[in-house]
Formats: sequence, C-alpha cells, structure tokens
Amino acid sequence: MERPTMDKIISLAKRRGFVYPGSEIYGGLANSWDYGPVGVELKNNIKQLWWDMFVHKRDDMVGLDAAIVMNPKVWEVSGHLKEFSDPLVECKKCHSRFRADHLGFVDEKGRPLENTGIMCPECGKNDWTTPQQFNLMLKTQLGPIDDKKNSVYFRPETAQAMFVNFKNITQTNRKNPPFGIAQIGKAFRNEITPGNFIFRTREFEQMEIEYFIPKPTDDAQWQAYFDHWLENMRHWLQAIGISSEKVHELDIPDGERAHYSARTVDFEYEFPFGRKELYGLAYRTDFDLKNHMEASGEDLQYLNQTTGEKYIPHVIEPSFGVDRTLLAVLCESYREDDKRTWLSLPFSLAPYKIAVFPLLANKPELVEKAKTIYNKMRQKYPTAWDDRGNIGKRYFSQDEIGTPLCLTIDFETLENDTVTVRYRDSMTQERATVADILKKMEEFS
Amino acid sequence: MERPTMDKIISLAKRRGFVYPGSEIYGGLANSWDYGPVGVELKNNIKQLWWDMFVHKRDDMVGLDAAIVMNPKVWEVSGHLKEFSDPLVECKKCHSRFRADHLGFVDEKGRPLENTGIMCPECGKNDWTTPQQFNLMLKTQLGPIDDKKNSVYFRPETAQAMFVNFKNITQTNRKNPPFGIAQIGKAFRNEITPGNFIFRTREFEQMEIEYFIPKPTDDAQWQAYFDHWLENMRHWLQAIGISSEKVHELDIPDGERAHYSARTVDFEYEFPFGRKELYGLAYRTDFDLKNHMEASGEDLQYLNQTTGEKYIPHVIEPSFGVDRTLLAVLCESYREDDKRTWLSLPFSLAPYKIAVFPLLANKPELVEKAKTIYNKMRQKYPTAWDDRGNIGKRYFSQDEIGTPLCLTIDFETLENDTVTVRYRDSMTQERATVADILKKMEEFS
Repeated sequence: MERPTMDKIISLAKRRGFVYPGSEIYGGLANSWDYGPVGVELKNNIKQLWWDMFVHKRDDMVGLDAAIVMNPKVWEVSGHLKEFSDPLVECKKCHSRFRADHLGFVDEKGRPLENTGIMCPECGKNDWTTPQQFNLMLKTQLGPIDDKKNSVYFRPETAQAMFVNFKNITQTNRKNPPFGIAQIGKAFRNEITPGNFIFRTREFEQMEIEYFIPKPTDDAQWQAYFDHWLENMRHWLQAIGISSEKVHELDIPDGERAHYSARTVDFEYEFPFGRKELYGLAYRTDFDLKNHMEASGEDLQYLNQTTGEKYIPHVIEPSFGVDRTLLAVLCESYREDDKRTWLSLPFSLAPYKIAVFPLLANKPELVEKAKTIYNKMRQKYPTAWDDRGNIGKRYFSQDEIGTPLCLTIDFETLENDTVTVRYRDSMTQERATVADILKKMEEFS
Repeated sequence: MERPTMDKIISLAKRRGFVYPGSEIYGGLANSWDYGPVGVELKNNIKQLWWDMFVHKRDDMVGLDAAIVMNPKVWEVSGHLKEFSDPLVECKKCHSRFRADHLGFVDEKGRPLENTGIMCPECGKNDWTTPQQFNLMLKTQLGPIDDKKNSVYFRPETAQAMFVNFKNITQTNRKNPPFGIAQIGKAFRNEITPGNFIFRTREFEQMEIEYFIPKPTDDAQWQAYFDHWLENMRHWLQAIGISSEKVHELDIPDGERAHYSARTVDFEYEFPFGRKELYGLAYRTDFDLKNHMEASGEDLQYLNQTTGEKYIPHVIEPSFGVDRTLLAVLCESYREDDKRTWLSLPFSLAPYKIAVFPLLANKPELVEKAKTIYNKMRQKYPTAWDDRGNIGKRYFSQDEIGTPLCLTIDFETLENDTVTVRYRDSMTQERATVADILKKMEEFS
C-alpha cells in the first residue's frame, strides 16, 4: 500500500476521537493538540507497555515521577540556560520569525550570513535580521513576588530529574550499577516553528531512561551496555508494530554529537513528511553526574559496598517521545482499500480489544444476551458496544479505531451460545463460543 | 492506634523512596516534591484504579487528555483570569507575604482591615499592606515573540478542557447525556502559601469528571445524578481503604458556594494537620457550556436525534486530587507498634504485591529456586526481590512499603515445592504451594 498522507491521518484522528486540535472552539492555539477518548487510551497503552517492558519486567530498573518545575540551578548546571537555544531570524519587512537553520542559513564560524538570497516564506522579501540565539525554555514566576529572582522554568526534558535524584534513589533503594531510572512525563520547549501535527509541539511527553553503568576501564565495557540498549529499543519498536524497514539507525558522527557524548544513535522513522528523528540513544559518559556533583557539593559517587571502590557512574540514555510514538503507530497501522479504512494496531495498543453487537437493536432478547456477553468481556478487556445502524457500519467504525475483534450476537446465539467473530485485518468471520474467544484473546495479549 | 504525625509520614516517605523533596541537592524548591520508585508505583496504581472504575467499567464515560496550555480565551471565559485569586498581604517591616485569609484577616464589604492586631508570623510586627488580589495562574510567553500578546497560562484545573472539547467528543463518539468525560493530568496554581507536604503544592495532579445530564425540569432530576456521584465517591474511598469515620461530607451552604452552583459537597479528610478538603462534588448547572457557547459562537447544545430536542446539558463535577489521595492513603495505612512500622495498603494500591526471598543468599540452589518463583510471580504481579541481610530485616523493609505477602524459599521448598508465606498485617506465616498463593492473590485483586 502507498504511505498514507498526513491529511488522511489527521482526518481519521479527528473524526474518530484520537486527536483534536487544542482549544478548537476558540480558533485553537498554535500547534497544540488534545487526545480524545480513543487517543487517550492508545497513549495510555503505549505508556503502560513501555513501563511494563522497561520497569516492571526488569530487575535493574526503577521508576521516578519528578516535579516538572525544578530548581533553576538544575538548568544552569545542565547547560540548558546558556545553550538550549535555536537561531532565530526575523524578516525585517513582515516581521515573521523563523528558525535560521530551517531556512537554510549556514552559520559559519559564529558569523551569520545576512541577505543571503533566502526569501521570507511569508512575504517573499530578502531582508533578514542577524540570527539571535533564542532560548527554548518556558519561563514563569513562582511564588507571590513578581521578581526575576523567582524565575523558574518548565523542564525541557525529563532526564535531569534522574541525575538530581540519583543519590536519593541509590540510598533508599540500594540499587547498584548497572541499573536505570525511568520516567514518563511532560516537557516543554518554546519551539520557533512547531509543526507536522503532533510531531513537533511546544508541549509534549517523554519516556526517558538514564542507565547508570560502572565506570568503564575500556571502550568495550560501555559499548556492551550501549548495544544492549540498541537491541532493547529495536525490541520495543517491534512490540508496537513498527516495521524495521521504515526505521533507520543513524550513528551520529564525531563533531555533530554533543561534546560529552562518545556515541549517539538516532532512530529515524519514515514519516509521511520525511525521515525524522523518533528516538535517541546516547552514551553520556559521567558528564551529568560530575557537573551536578561539582555544582551542588553533594557526593554523587557510587560506593561499592563490597570492593570499597568509589566512582561516578557513566550513563547510557535511551530517550523516547510519547507523541511521536503515537504518530508513528498511527502512520504504520493505517490501511485503506476501496471499501474501508482500518488501523492494523497491535492487540496490546488497541483502545478497545473487542466490540460486542446485538444483531438487531429492536429485539430485547438479543440485546439482553449481548449485554451479558459485553459485561463478561469487559471484566477482562476494554470492550466497545454498538447497537446502531447495520452491522456493516459498525464494522466500519471499529475498523477505523483498530478494534481487533467484533462479536455479533444473533438468534443462533440464543440456541447454542456461539457468536460470529469477525477479524479486523482479514475480515474473515467464524462461529465460536465466548470461552473460545476469551482463550484466543489471552494468546494475543 | 494514635494518628501518625506528619513527621513520621514524611520520614517514611523519604527513607523508603515514596516521596523526596524536589531538587534536593540544590536546596530544594519551595514545597516541590518528587515521587520516587515506590511512590510512582503507588501513584500510578491510584490513577489506574480510578480510570478503571470511572472510565473502563462504565458505559457512560469516556476519557480525555488535553494540552496543559490552552488558548487564554478559555480562562477569560471561565472567569479564572479575573477571579481566580487569593488576597495577598505583605508585612511592611520584613516584607514576608501571606494569604490574608490564612492569617485571619476578615474582608468586610470589600474594605480590608489594616493593623488589626494580627502579628506577622515571621517578624512579629503588626504593620500590613492592604490586601491585594493575587492571581493564581502561572503565566508564560509562548512563541518566539516576547510580547504580552503571547501570554498563556498553565491550566489551574483540568476541568475546562472537558467543556472546550464537549462538541468534538459528542460528535465523534456519539455520546448522549447522561454521559461523562474524565481526565487525569497536571495543573498549576501559584499558591501564596503552599504547605503540609504534598497536600498543597504549586504543581499537582487532578482526576476530574464532568458529567453531562439532560436539562432538568425539576430539582429531583439533577439531585438523582448528584446522589449517584456522592455514592460513587464513597465507593471510591472504600476501594482505596479510606475509613468513612475519617471522612466528612460538608454540604456547602448558600452564599458560600460559587454563584452558579446549586449544590456543592466537600469531602474532608482528617489529616494529621487537621480536617481538610480532599475531594469536591458540585452541581454546576449549565453555567460552563453556556458561557463557552456565548463566547466562542460555537453551538454547544446537545441535539437529541430521537426527540429533536436541543438543549445545553447541565453538569455534575466530581473532582479528585491525586497527590491528596496519595497522602490520605499514606496517613490511613500507616501503622506502628513496638517492633515495626507498616503500611496496611489495599492490595490494588501496593507498589509490590509480593516479595520473594531465598532463605540464604549464599546457597545457590536456594537462590536459583527463588529466582524461578520470582520470575513466575512477576509475569502476573509487580514483585520485589530481596536477598540481603536476615529474613527479619527483609520483612521490615517490605512492611514499610506495604507489600502484602512475602515468600521465603528454604530447603523444604526444594523437597516439596512449598514456601513460607508471611502476611503483612497479621504477621502470620503458613506453608503453601506457589499455585495456592497465586490463587489467593487472584482473590485479592
């Protein structure tokens, strides 16, 4: 099948209640989006599957849920206050603002080029201001005194909280390297040009891990952990149904990596709007803990109780975007043919696992029987109910939200307790008992 | 047992990894808190139980996850921009700032009293500024232009998003009143005096429902829905183990309710620092939808397809604080006697449902057998592992984080596959097979 266009994805997302434009009745708010009834279920399923795979199913991981607003010193020490910025240029004619690098400006030896022949996408003129570094953190005043001293920032990443809480966690949970801290939560970046639906937004959600390893004595030691996480990120992509052909692992070359990173791999996905970063994996050495240790005066070394050795652990950072994952899952599972559109979602991610229909809504005995089965099903699985229109229309609706199975209760059900099961992807139908179906679903999940 | 003091709760929360002071290595940030490894599990269990009870297990509810930052028009229309404020006074001597009402200032007929004899809690002087209304919303600038026109606010409640998305949801999910929209998410209030641990913080999490009912033709009609939700909120408190003797339902009298609310009940809990608001239930009439309809120009009426009737639904709003729930759960489940401290958490909320210990860590055959059982258990349940120190110390640790069951694998296990099960609350022990224990756990959950 051809790749779906973004228009088709956005249209499906809105008409079925996955994603609505934010604040829509007030004309929206630049590139903000709200997750609707099936969107929030899909998003929660992604987050729960991730937490299960990377926290609950592992011995060497613990979770964290830190406040979004941290002491501003954190961002001073991490370098975000000084360096977390994009080059901003303004068209002198129409005063539109853009990210210089997105326009193709090249910043050579710190001296930006002006009047380069690059035209303003808004007014077509060629008269630019000098690019200014524009800090991407959202600032506010906390506390009852309106004073610069009270300035705080909404975190631009969840990662720093893991370093700041490293000591508390090792002390209270007696974890020894190698071990990791995982966190899921909102982050904010004042992007100059957000866009591409939920791909780049100013408010977004991250799933991040800081994996602390013993101080390596040679490269092979950290590389083994790095490879372990590469492999785990590939497993994750498989679990959420992203085909490996559409994912590209980009080893970031020397000079383009952050100065402290000895290796970084970007996972890029072939979105309908191009190949773009989905996830990242970085070996950050002991850069973060060392800086926080120096700045805070707290000893952030790990003391090996057995050997008596004391060292600052090194860090491998696997980083996942929640919204980008959801977008990739929508793009990947979108299918259409002459007759219908459907989302071929993995069972674990589908908002509803099954739908139950009475064949005819005006036959109380069918409705009653269907309700009994519906109530039984949803003790175990999120289950949809539909008794409107004809069966074809109900399949159509469930296909578009990716429900794997539909059960229809008809007159035969009243006789022998079998129902018609219809499968989303193949559209095949068969008769089965509810017990059979429950067994089959257990295999799926 | 005597009620635990807040000091004891805070101390347990920190030493076991439930809640740490936020940004602690940098001296913290006024009353911000981070949820540690067991804290995030407890918090997630609370949120998932709530979502399961109020969304998945009901036919008449759907979820939403809206952006935290909304179009500022939302807060103009809701009244928050103008009225969402507290009276702020400053001591003219030491410049400390306080909420006037918390100090006991009485604002009579709009004319505040100065030099009332109330002393500054900081410096003991009695020289106050006139109380000023201080807006509680956190403001920031969104977009690359630093201009007042770009001011946006971090939502002070999740509720407004349900009204703003009402039309999208009814159109895409074809829900008919009575039906509700549920949302869990962060909110921010620039409290003048936050305090009491995680009770009042500037960043917090809410679980809110807007339940839309047909336009009532007499009081009995909305009262029936109100009573339904009163009952459901009591059920919820029961499910999370909060004893009804410590909860007080306060019917807010006329004149103290918001002008648009025909009835409001506050659920107060006896915290160690006093009886304070835990949850709220309000009948808000059609106030919110009507205002948003007028201001946005969008038709937010519901059209009954069968009768052709068009009306603005009325709203019942059950509102729950996540952090306050977690605090109430900690206070309620805290137990101590001469020998130990334990959290008598409900099974559904416990961070770990079970812990597995090899009797001796230096006997490979015991460790291996214990690991097998551990790996089997955690396919189904969050399971802790501990092989340090003696068994008594391990019970002590698990008791403090509220793990209901501990299994010890000893030499007899190798012979007949039975283990020692020890129960958290009663401290009783018995021999049982793993199959027996799994069956028992299924009954608990």
